[in-house]
Formats: sequence, structure tokens, C-alpha cells
Amino acid sequence: MSRDLAVALLSGGMDSCVCAAIAAQEHELALLHVSYGQRTAARERRAFQEIADFWGVERRLECRLDHLRQIGGSSLTDLNLPVVKDGLDKGPGGIPTSYVPFRNAHLIAIAVSWAEVIGARWVYIGAVEADSSGYPDCRPSYYEAFNRLIELGTRPETNIRLVTPVIEMSKAEIIRRGLEFGAPLHLTWSCYEREDRACGRCDSCLLRWRAFEQAGVADPVPYVAR
Amino acid sequence: MSRDLAVALLSGGMDSCVCAAIAAQEHELALLHVSYGQRTAARERRAFQEIADFWGVERRLECRLDHLRQIGGSSLTDLNLPVVKDGLDKGPGGIPTSYVPFRNAHLIAIAVSWAEVIGARWVYIGAVEADSSGYPDCRPSYYEAFNRLIELGTRPETNIRLVTPVIEMSKAEIIRRGLEFGAPLHLTWSCYEREDRACGRCDSCLLRWRAFEQAGVADPVPYVAR
Repeated sequence: MSRDLAVALLSGGMDSCVCAAIAAQEHELALLHVSYGQRTAARERRAFQEIADFWGVERRLECRLDHLRQIGGSSLTDLNLPVVKDGLDKGPGGIPTSYVPFRNAHLIAIAVSWAEVIGARWVYIGAVEADSSGYPDCRPSYYEAFNRLIELGTRPETNIRLVTPVIEMSKAEIIRRGLEFGAPLHLTWSCYEREDRACGRCDSCLLRWRAFEQAGVADPVPYVAR
Repeated sequence: MSRDLAVALLSGGMDSCVCAAIAAQEHELALLHVSYGQRTAARERRAFQEIADFWGVERRLECRLDHLRQIGGSSLTDLNLPVVKDGLDKGPGGIPTSYVPFRNAHLIAIAVSWAEVIGARWVYIGAVEADSSGYPDCRPSYYEAFNRLIELGTRPETNIRLVTPVIEMSKAEIIRRGLEFGAPLHLTWSCYEREDRACGRCDSCLLRWRAFEQAGVADPVPYVAR
């Protein structure tokens, strides 16, 4: 029996890699990668391609959004704003400076449009609420609201649902699930700042490093210094 | 007293032009135009620029989405699918072939990200339900769901609301309101097919032509033949 199709958003990071590995347990994968002018876009894109190759997924879509950089307002897309180092990034109101305003809506809109055209029934996204950076668009209520929007805003005969399988997991649990499903964590990239070796000092590196420690396994990616 | 800022989506068509004219009654305008690889993108962009010049609005953002063309699935973005002529476009399930899957979510996501960064409190969009082509993302319930998403997905201190002032108007009423507010309808462009003179035969031309007839005024844009 052929399996139904799921679009999985794959940034190149760990959470989306494990999320896609979970999707692959039940569905045939179509992998979507979106660059949006963030500092490490080239490295993340390479991670996407290597992960997709690892799984042998041929149905891929790579998109590039230039307007998030035009709009700015985030340390990831505005090179004049520094990436916070050596401490977790707590920006104004507890929202990190790396928050890209309303970013996930852009990514999900692409995933839903693609799903509608290729006939995919599911859209997987590796958003994480617990143990995350505190972005407002990573909460379960946001995804419930998005499912309502998809229901109303697509053709009546479609029935596309967003799925967020890792949203309530800790990062350490995500690593354990990734190892269980054979997800290629060695191919993922999380650093917000560097593309050769992980800086070990940005928010994303600190969260990743801590999670590997908690999971009791060594992080397979190279770091500048720890 | 300085007026608060509203982002108005301005496609270059009639509905969004009148919608922006309504927004300008109460707010200072920031104008957003999004090209997405549709057939008449260059002509619509020119209309945007001419309308923004007409009003003297300096705060402008022009974006280009390539992925809606990559994704396809619409006669507007896939040049292998013909634009329906000489009859209103009723595609499968009553959804026109010109429907671009989930398109408005992409446009609104850009508007909301920009509004969040520039501190705009309102996002105006000229969606029309009644007397429209029957796109699923032009209904009031869709915009209610989107407002919920914005509330959940942006910084807690922001309070951005989508406003759809023409959603329940007939196209003829939109023309009358446009004339009342001095909206530059002569600068707008609606044709889905041609960029020099309006074809007069596509869905969008037929709706526009009929609306000017109903409003009892002559359409100021040139047509190939009627």
C-alpha cells in the first residue's frame, strides 16, 4: 500500500530533522527548505541537502525569501544587530533578539501551498515550545490557530493538517528520539553565527550543547571551542 | 496629532487601491506590494508605483516571491495553464483556475512581519467576498482566523489587526467609494493576461467591466476591444 504524502519543513537544524524522521515513520516525505537571508543560510542549505540525500528523498523544494532580510528586525537577518553570546538571548519582553517577526507563518504558508498542489495531506514542522528560545510562534495554540486558517483558506476538498510532533519535547528528548529513528544528527547545523565549525557561544549552540549533555551523548558536529 | 501607521497591501488592482484610500482616511500609510511571478507582474508593479506616487507615500516595500511560481497550480503563475476567457472562471469545485493556492497567507505574513518591525498597528487588505471570483481565502471567517494567528504569533506587546474594509462590498460599490475618496482608479490594473491594454476577456476584466457598467461610469483604463 502506498503511503500518503507529508511535507516536512527541514531547516537543517536538529529539531526539524527529528521531526521529519518522525513523519517518515508513517508517510512518504516531501522536503521543504526555506532560506530567508539569515547569516548561516548557505550552511543550513547544505545541511538540508545532505539530510535529504541521506534519506534518498527526491521530492524537494528549496525556496529563498528575500523580504525577511529587507524587513529586518532580527539579529538573524539584520547584520547590524549582534547575535547574543555567552548567555541565553533574552531580548525585550523576554523574546530573543534572534526572533524573526512572524517568520513561521511565511514558512508554513509555503508548505501549505506546496501541499495543496502536490496533494500532501500533512505538513510537519519541528517547532519546540518547552526548552526553546521563547519565540511566540512556537506554541501549540499558534498551530491550532494555523490549522483553522488552513481549513478556511484552502480548497474545500483538501484536508491539510499541520503536525508538530516535537513541540512538547525537551531538546534532550528530541536527540534521544532522533537516535532511536536513525536521524542523521551529524548532518544537522544549529549555529546562528558560523558556517565552518559551530561557535559554541550563540543561543542556538548553547541550547544544543546543553541538550547533548543532558542526553548523555556527544554532539557529532565540530565546535570552535568548548 | 500624528496619525498611527497602517500597512496597506497594494496589488495595483482596483480593490486594494480603494482599500488603501479608505485606510488613508484614518491612518498614515505604509504601502506593500508583492510580486509572485504572475503573468502581469511588471504591469501591476508599475500600477503600485504610480498609485504610491499619486498619494506621495514614501514608506514602501516591494517584495518578490519566486516560490509561488515554483509551486505552480494556478493559471496566474503556471504559464502552461491557460487563463479562462469569455466566461467567468469556474474551476474544479467552483474555485477558479486563477486561484493561487493559499496565496493570501503569504502576502499577509509579509505585511504582518513588516508591521511588527515598523510599529504599524493595522494591516489593510482589499479582499472581496461578495461579487468576487470565489477564492477561499477571501471570506471574513478566514480573516478572523488570521487575526487570531497574529495575536498568538507576534510579540506580546504588539497589537496588530487585519482590516478588510471592502470585503462585503460589490465591485460597483468599491468603484463608487473609490471615486468618493479620490482614489486613482485610472492608475489601477486588473487584467490577468495583458500588460499594454486590458484584454477585456479574462475573469478579472469581465468582473471589472461589469462593475463599471453597474456603477454607471466609464472605466478609464484602455481595453483591446469590447
